[in-house]
Amino acid sequence: MQGERPFDLLNKAIGQKVMIRLKNGDEIRGKVSSFDAHMNMVIDDAEEVGDDGGSKAKLGTILLRGGNILFVSPV
Amino acid sequence: MQGERPFDLLNKAIGQKVMIRLKNGDEIRGKVSSFDAHMNMVIDDAEEVGDDGGSKAKLGTILLRGGNILFVSPV
Amino acid sequence: MQGERPFDLLNKAIGQKVMIRLKNGDEIRGKVSSFDAHMNMVIDDAEEVGDDGGSKAKLGTILLRGGNILFVSPV
Amino acid sequence: MQGERPFDLLNKAIGQKVMIRLKNGDEIRGKVSSFDAHMNMVIDDAEEVGDDGGSKAKLGTILLRGGNILFVSPV
Amino acid sequence: MQGERPFDLLNKAIGQKVMIRLKNGDEIRGKVSSFDAHMNMVIDDAEEVGDDGGSKAKLGTILLRGGNILFVSPV
Amino acid sequence: MQGERPFDLLNKAIGQKVMIRLKNGDEIRGKVSSFDAHMNMVIDDAEEVGDDGGSKAKLGTILLRGGNILFVSPV
Amino acid sequence: MQGERPFDLLNKAIGQKVMIRLKNGDEIRGKVSSFDAHMNMVIDDAEEVGDDGGSKAKLGTILLRGGNILFVSPV
Repeated sequence: MQGERPFDLLNKAIGQKVMIRLKNGDEIRGKVSSFDAHMNMVIDDAEEVGDDGGSKAKLGTILLRGGNILFVSPV
Repeated sequence: MQGERPFDLLNKAIGQKVMIRLKNGDEIRGKVSSFDAHMNMVIDDAEEVGDDGGSKAKLGTILLRGGNILFVSPV
Repeated sequence: MQGERPFDLLNKAIGQKVMIRLKNGDEIRGKVSSFDAHMNMVIDDAEEVGDDGGSKAKLGTILLRGGNILFVSPV
Repeated sequence: MQGERPFDLLNKAIGQKVMIRLKNGDEIRGKVSSFDAHMNMVIDDAEEVGDDGGSKAKLGTILLRGGNILFVSPV
Repeated sequence: MQGERPFDLLNKAIGQKVMIRLKNGDEIRGKVSSFDAHMNMVIDDAEEVGDDGGSKAKLGTILLRGGNILFVSPV
Repeated sequence: MQGERPFDLLNKAIGQKVMIRLKNGDEIRGKVSSFDAHMNMVIDDAEEVGDDGGSKAKLGTILLRGGNILFVSPV
Repeated sequence: MQGERPFDLLNKAIGQKVMIRLKNGDEIRGKVSSFDAHMNMVIDDAEEVGDDGGSKAKLGTILLRGGNILFVSPV
């Protein structure tokens, strides 16, 4: 539709840390390893973020299904 | 179907501020950077809007999945 | 399937006022500017309608995702 | 799959009164004006039906998104 | 995948009585008149079944959207 | 993607007893008669399983829509 | 989109133990036997994980529908 496309943000985020807000309200932080056209993402050093912004649980490397994502934000 | 199409509104909104109402009732304000055919959008200077209309949280740049959107409105 | 098709109603509604009932129970009133095959619609002078039938909030021009719509009715 | 197909019921219902049960439990009564392959329907003289079976609200002509329908029944 | 296919059950059920459990927990009983590849079904002499297994409401002939079905069982 | 594929489990389960956990939390036990690519399954001698693991209701033969399934397990 | 793709994680996980978080909040642990493009997975020695991280129920081998998955993590 125009020069820049939304997924360019994910491309630039490879190897970088992002915060992911899920549809169920939970937040996951970690480093983007890869993604595909469904927004499925592999996140390294993933951790669930508690309500106070601190780490609630270490998840290690995860494959996250894109359909659960509300938004992704580089941090 | 007719001359004007709904996504023309997004095209004209590039670089402009919009308010986005999500299906879960939350509102996000920010500047449209890009969008695609699924209404996925990159929003710059994004912030969550509280019930009083004020900023609740600064989100920075986000990639928002289009499927979560109720409506988008230029502000 | 037959001469008349459901989307003809939207075509005739361009420039006219409609009431839109959403799946979440909310109602939006405004003037149809454009629509597409997914029932995405641009509505001008949109306003949320309160339980008493009066205007609850002015939304201006909005791009509404069709998947949120229960029904559309010319008023 | 066989001679008769489910949508034949809608074809025969054009110009006739039907009762439509929605997924959210609500009921709408009115006259079928047109329909398409997604079960989107234009209903004339539509009215919402209350729990007592009486008319709760006159809706006039509506374009109903098929995805909200539980079942349609000629009355 | 193999000789017998699940929809063969519906084919054999044409003209026969079935019980249909819906996703919302409700049950409908009646005679299968026709069906299509989306499991949309026309049911004759349909009736809603109450918690005690008795008839709660006569629905007559209905066109049921397949997406609402949990399972269908010949009775 | 690799030699073995998930649906091979269903193929081997034809004529065998399985336990099916549904998305709504309910469990159904019975013998697999057939299945298709949507995981629609015909189950013979189906019974709903109560919280104590015992039979809650005999369902006979059912056609179960695949979209309602959480997982299937040979027993 | 780039060299590495998210499903490579599943490929490397064949024969390995993973933790699967479901959309409904439940967790399942077990060994990946196979998967397909919908993220349907056959898991051997599957067990449901209780809130305390211990085993709540042995499930044996299961075919899990991919649409129920929130994320998969090698353990």
